Amino acid sequence: MTTHRLTLEYDGTDFHGWQSQPAVRTVAGTLLDAIELVTGERPAFTAAGRTDTGAHAHAQVVGIHLRRDWEPATLRAALNAVLPADVAIVDAERCAPGFNARRDAVLRTYRYVVASRDARTPVLRRHAWYVRGPLDLDAMRAAAAALEGRHDFRGFGTATHPGGSTTRTVAGITIETAGVEPDAPRAPQLVVISVRANAFLRGMMRSFAGALVAVGQGRRPASWVADLVREGAARDGSLTVAPARGLHQWAVSYSPSEGRAA
Amino acid sequence: MTTHRLTLEYDGTDFHGWQSQPAVRTVAGTLLDAIELVTGERPAFTAAGRTDTGAHAHAQVVGIHLRRDWEPATLRAALNAVLPADVAIVDAERCAPGFNARRDAVLRTYRYVVASRDARTPVLRRHAWYVRGPLDLDAMRAAAAALEGRHDFRGFGTATHPGGSTTRTVAGITIETAGVEPDAPRAPQLVVISVRANAFLRGMMRSFAGALVAVGQGRRPASWVADLVREGAARDGSLTVAPARGLHQWAVSYSPSEGRAA
Repeated sequence: MTTHRLTLEYDGTDFHGWQSQPAVRTVAGTLLDAIELVTGERPAFTAAGRTDTGAHAHAQVVGIHLRRDWEPATLRAALNAVLPADVAIVDAERCAPGFNARRDAVLRTYRYVVASRDARTPVLRRHAWYVRGPLDLDAMRAAAAALEGRHDFRGFGTATHPGGSTTRTVAGITIETAGVEPDAPRAPQLVVISVRANAFLRGMMRSFAGALVAVGQGRRPASWVADLVREGAARDGSLTVAPARGLHQWAVSYSPSEGRAA
Repeated sequence: MTTHRLTLEYDGTDFHGWQSQPAVRTVAGTLLDAIELVTGERPAFTAAGRTDTGAHAHAQVVGIHLRRDWEPATLRAALNAVLPADVAIVDAERCAPGFNARRDAVLRTYRYVVASRDARTPVLRRHAWYVRGPLDLDAMRAAAAALEGRHDFRGFGTATHPGGSTTRTVAGITIETAGVEPDAPRAPQLVVISVRANAFLRGMMRSFAGALVAVGQGRRPASWVADLVREGAARDGSLTVAPARGLHQWAVSYSPSEGRAA
């Protein structure tokens, strides 16, 4: 019995989210099918996060237990040979038998990509939220400051398990733009919202993006976001949840002692 | 009768290239259908370039003549309302009646995007060429220097019209990497090859990318590219044409006096 930590990248456009469900194409189901085809086993697994339908991952982390002792590079290559083009194993390594990809994660980073212009953005349409621009980054940054720290974020999402805590700790938020390149004056303004937190509520990152874009577009003052945090909900239903296509699960960190083979 | 200059962005993945053809979905055919639906006219048009099946454009320029005098912003909005999600008009403006988007272009910029890693790159799979890395950028830059200037590029592509000249002037090539971000050690190495030239032969940019990647991977010395330019062809058939999906028509420049309404 060996435990492997797999790191996955996937384009979520054509998946019905991460979580296995009967009769629909999910990332977890596709991964398990590939593992079964390659190893003959359909193992138990843990995952760092569960992305929504249409959301993407650049470093989803999965822990699996296999009876046979696979060489990590061989396992990775064999899985990539049978996985479809929209998902790949970018890394495989042996880890401690007790490794749990969800429970042991200490920090998660999600990115939300907004593409702002006066016209739609065809090339980025699967990977960014198109909004009419321009966006006021200073206002967005001022609003984002209110989201940092330990708060009850019940106004921004729901607990993973019914009745679970809705308090999370946001370690930091950055809002950066790719900037307009001199030779491409008609390229969209790309705004990347990066949020690092110990864990995320379901819908939390998309609610953050919806709130920050409302501020960036001048539809709400920056103080409105602080009000939402304090009041615990958008009482007038005015909080827009940004679409899944702009959401990218970007990185997951484990404490140095976790997840390594003993 | 008014002439408009339209700037288009499109994702070429699901198009059979730019050029209108019967019974297949092309960008020009899709654009003309939209123009006819909106204006009732199916006008003559000129285009700055003709991209291959699967290649993308961020600023394809088209000149069209319409009988009715459309307000540019209205024309743009109306066309975007009927065009499919993978193509959009990013700009429309009135221009001089004699404007010819192909003939009047003085400089074209194409980008070729390479994603290098030990595993496939699902999120970028429609927009970049995945190759095993890492790539030696210094060697690629040394090789690229031989492509700059006025040369007979018959070894790298074919003339747009049979019997046409295969001499083109490459004004500059840059090779840049997006770099590995500290929090994303498993992200691919992104290498963007940008070529500015007065005009491009058919297949030229994809041949440039194929040659430069062969050097970057250490399969060929940098001097091999200079040999190809001097000899006018890869006599042993060793030149790989890079796939269309990494190719992005990026910008087209017109002299200040061209293309503006009188």
